[in-house]
Amino acid sequence: MEYIILDKRLDYDGSQISSLWAYNLADVQADSIIAFRGGCDVKAEHMIDLEDKKQGDLIFSTDMVHFIIEHFDSTDLKLVYARQRLFTALVAELLSGYGNAIVRRGDDLFVEGKKLTVSIASTSAVSQKIHFGINVVHDHYGSLEDIGISGSEVAGLMEKIVMLYYNEFADIEEDLRKSRPLDVI
Amino acid sequence: MEYIILDKRLDYDGSQISSLWAYNLADVQADSIIAFRGGCDVKAEHMIDLEDKKQGDLIFSTDMVHFIIEHFDSTDLKLVYARQRLFTALVAELLSGYGNAIVRRGDDLFVEGKKLTVSIASTSAVSQKIHFGINVVHDHYGSLEDIGISGSEVAGLMEKIVMLYYNEFADIEEDLRKSRPLDVI
Amino acid sequence: MEYIILDKRLDYDGSQISSLWAYNLADVQADSIIAFRGGCDVKAEHMIDLEDKKQGDLIFSTDMVHFIIEHFDSTDLKLVYARQRLFTALVAELLSGYGNAIVRRGDDLFVEGKKLTVSIASTSAVSQKIHFGINVVHDHYGSLEDIGISGSEVAGLMEKIVMLYYNEFADIEEDLRKSRPLDVI
Amino acid sequence: MEYIILDKRLDYDGSQISSLWAYNLADVQADSIIAFRGGCDVKAEHMIDLEDKKQGDLIFSTDMVHFIIEHFDSTDLKLVYARQRLFTALVAELLSGYGNAIVRRGDDLFVEGKKLTVSIASTSAVSQKIHFGINVVHDHYGSLEDIGISGSEVAGLMEKIVMLYYNEFADIEEDLRKSRPLDVI
Amino acid sequence: MEYIILDKRLDYDGSQISSLWAYNLADVQADSIIAFRGGCDVKAEHMIDLEDKKQGDLIFSTDMVHFIIEHFDSTDLKLVYARQRLFTALVAELLSGYGNAIVRRGDDLFVEGKKLTVSIASTSAVSQKIHFGINVVHDHYGSLEDIGISGSEVAGLMEKIVMLYYNEFADIEEDLRKSRPLDVI
Amino acid sequence: MEYIILDKRLDYDGSQISSLWAYNLADVQADSIIAFRGGCDVKAEHMIDLEDKKQGDLIFSTDMVHFIIEHFDSTDLKLVYARQRLFTALVAELLSGYGNAIVRRGDDLFVEGKKLTVSIASTSAVSQKIHFGINVVHDHYGSLEDIGISGSEVAGLMEKIVMLYYNEFADIEEDLRKSRPLDVI
Repeated sequence: MEYIILDKRLDYDGSQISSLWAYNLADVQADSIIAFRGGCDVKAEHMIDLEDKKQGDLIFSTDMVHFIIEHFDSTDLKLVYARQRLFTALVAELLSGYGNAIVRRGDDLFVEGKKLTVSIASTSAVSQKIHFGINVVHDHYGSLEDIGISGSEVAGLMEKIVMLYYNEFADIEEDLRKSRPLDVI
Repeated sequence: MEYIILDKRLDYDGSQISSLWAYNLADVQADSIIAFRGGCDVKAEHMIDLEDKKQGDLIFSTDMVHFIIEHFDSTDLKLVYARQRLFTALVAELLSGYGNAIVRRGDDLFVEGKKLTVSIASTSAVSQKIHFGINVVHDHYGSLEDIGISGSEVAGLMEKIVMLYYNEFADIEEDLRKSRPLDVI
Repeated sequence: MEYIILDKRLDYDGSQISSLWAYNLADVQADSIIAFRGGCDVKAEHMIDLEDKKQGDLIFSTDMVHFIIEHFDSTDLKLVYARQRLFTALVAELLSGYGNAIVRRGDDLFVEGKKLTVSIASTSAVSQKIHFGINVVHDHYGSLEDIGISGSEVAGLMEKIVMLYYNEFADIEEDLRKSRPLDVI
Repeated sequence: MEYIILDKRLDYDGSQISSLWAYNLADVQADSIIAFRGGCDVKAEHMIDLEDKKQGDLIFSTDMVHFIIEHFDSTDLKLVYARQRLFTALVAELLSGYGNAIVRRGDDLFVEGKKLTVSIASTSAVSQKIHFGINVVHDHYGSLEDIGISGSEVAGLMEKIVMLYYNEFADIEEDLRKSRPLDVI
Repeated sequence: MEYIILDKRLDYDGSQISSLWAYNLADVQADSIIAFRGGCDVKAEHMIDLEDKKQGDLIFSTDMVHFIIEHFDSTDLKLVYARQRLFTALVAELLSGYGNAIVRRGDDLFVEGKKLTVSIASTSAVSQKIHFGINVVHDHYGSLEDIGISGSEVAGLMEKIVMLYYNEFADIEEDLRKSRPLDVI
Repeated sequence: MEYIILDKRLDYDGSQISSLWAYNLADVQADSIIAFRGGCDVKAEHMIDLEDKKQGDLIFSTDMVHFIIEHFDSTDLKLVYARQRLFTALVAELLSGYGNAIVRRGDDLFVEGKKLTVSIASTSAVSQKIHFGINVVHDHYGSLEDIGISGSEVAGLMEKIVMLYYNEFADIEEDLRKSRPLDVI
């Protein structure tokens, strides 16, 4: 697995959830997690979650940190959803350390009752992908600012989150290689 | 998915991790999570984690709450390990609400630097299973007592944990049924 | 699994075989079988069976009962085809009870040598689906009318078929959760 | 796929459900269906269905026709169970042609309210298998005799059933090779 | 598995890598390998290898022998890539018999340091496919001419390669049907 | 993937084909290829190939180089067999460079008409494994000695073979991460 934290600002418009985006961007030929900072304005044509699409939901924010995960080891929807929930829990664990109560409901995080994040997961015929975005500042929704994270701390947080998933994934891959099959009653 | 909280005390000896244990115990013919309270003394022949077996690790505790999860939807090792980590994170989130800092490292939880839990996951040809045990009291390791959970609160905690996983699983199963496949670059 | 029998008439034009149609129609976030009554006029762009497409087959009927099945548990072509054949056999068993000899050949049913049904099965990256349509009346092909089913009996038949598959699926899911793995010679 | 109808009598004792039995018996290196005639007396150690094992069910008959199916294309429990139900339905269709009403419930067939058949399906790490047995004569249960099939007709029936599954399987394998993937809403 | 060697010349433009091309061309409803001779000029819209697409690589040759393989047994990317490498090795083995040193690097073959072949593999939701092309003559790249294969020998070579893969595949399918599952430490 | 070349001599008795042998031997928690030198004397209880077992074949050699490959990415028999054939072809390519004609038939290599190698592949519920052994010296069968490889060259060959597979596997894993899904006709 490779990880990249982009220096330059990039707006998430939904095209980044496409399979092989990492290869196209940076010639990545591995499973990967890529973080970047930028606005969020998802075009209807790129909406993966039909609920958003039906409701004409605006997925809009002027400043977010984004995480794009791609795995090529299977195209099992159940696996990518379990990984998405696990990623969400990792972020919750980290943010909880900043003093504010962070509440996780499914793939959403809340601070002081305000929604802090957006996320989606799905598969194509060649890979599985997760997008996870966290508001840096926001007028109505929750944001890192509400948690007391701002300025240069934002970049530090991006790196911490990337490393959390990177290490968790490596740890899982190791653990499953020392387990005997189950007996059966 | 079904859930059961056993009334009677039951010691975990490693045989409960076998596939179809839930059917044998209670005629369960569904994916399931079953909780019970009892000691923990795993015989070498039932050790699934080769690391424990090699090191001759004693997996021993006089009083634990145990959770046994079984899924029949695939026999993918990667999926059961992702689910095990997610379950661990769910328990961490819940216990963190009791005031003590709970630290998760992989599939282990710690309180005040003391290991609080044991866990294993694996598959047979017919199902995937997870065992997760939490010390209720312990002389050397961490325990629910250290967190301030004792007496009748233990039974309440068992139910809360069972419902957390039950609801998270149901929520995931619903979410993956409204996602469009990914585009490709 | 959920089942729905639509009250209002709906023509099958091939778009209903698309993945996530059930979610779009009725917010269904489960495996599902949905029945409705209406004409059948499949546009070439929606033809899944290349044989029909190559031959420029008209798939046309003015009045049919339609069944749309969607499963999200895997995207295995072999599984959805086995399920399609099983569904076809279930319908044959039911219709045989009305007195006329019903002949099944693959995924087709015949009454008095006349083709009574159309069916297709396939997968996308996120789900597997089956369409099965039965002529209610038809000038050239076989129809429920030929079997003596008409008027309000048609709605009753739709419900019976939906429940047959719903119950068979539930029964299979239970049965596979009590079987030990095979020994090997 | 290969098919074999054994000339010599062979009692089913449960060992024939083991993976690779066909190779061991007759050097079969293909998916296969093998039919033979003989008694049925399943030892507890070979019982695959835990329900039978728990209840200490005697699976006993002095004269049955047996069908053993093995597929190596996957080890998916859901697929072998769908195939088992389809096989059961094929047999029901055939036997219904002999004049008696044959009722199918899951993987069981009944004639005049009496159970006519036994069946089990499961997987190992290398293959999926189905056993299906039909009483030829029986004092208490249903039998081919009750349907009016006896003497040399029994051998003919064995061949018809073998060919039904053989052809159905070939037909499915062809059909799934002309279907386009589904669109998505 | 079926094999076809086309009599008439056909240029490879990238459309032949599409799933179900064999069915569309020749009503093939089986796994297949199809060989034909013709130019190679892949349009950008049909480029499967993103590296070629990014670099605006011209995949161009006036005279090649082409092999198109399609399997429907799974849509596992890892399996189709292992098969592609194996196919490449089979061709290398055969061409090495003509006297020139043939060097294989991944899915490419070289003669006298000059690239002799192009290849790609991928999956859709319904099948896995491989394209493999060998220059017959070429001004800059390696070609069969360099190896001393020309005239009517080219058709003979096409048949040999087709039969090599056909027989290797059949042999593998047989071998995997006589192997017991592994023990575990 | 990790690779290890054992310094000390080790006889292959069939136990090394068991899943998790690499973990037990050297705490390897990754996909791996491990090479060692020693005799070969497979006990009947460890015979994976039923053909050998049925024929009471002695798999015996006093001096071989052995390669043990383990992958945890799936338990698909088809994938491990494709990998076994590819590994065999890699060895053939390498040995062919030493001047003697090496003939590959399936998973066997021959030199001067004499069988040079033994190999088996299979899966358990947790991993897939390959054993491949090459005679160093042999009275009746082919050996590295026949090819002119002896003394310290044997250790060099072991390393070359290990690196060939290691690099081929890495190359495949990269290649499959830049391929777009297939179009469909």
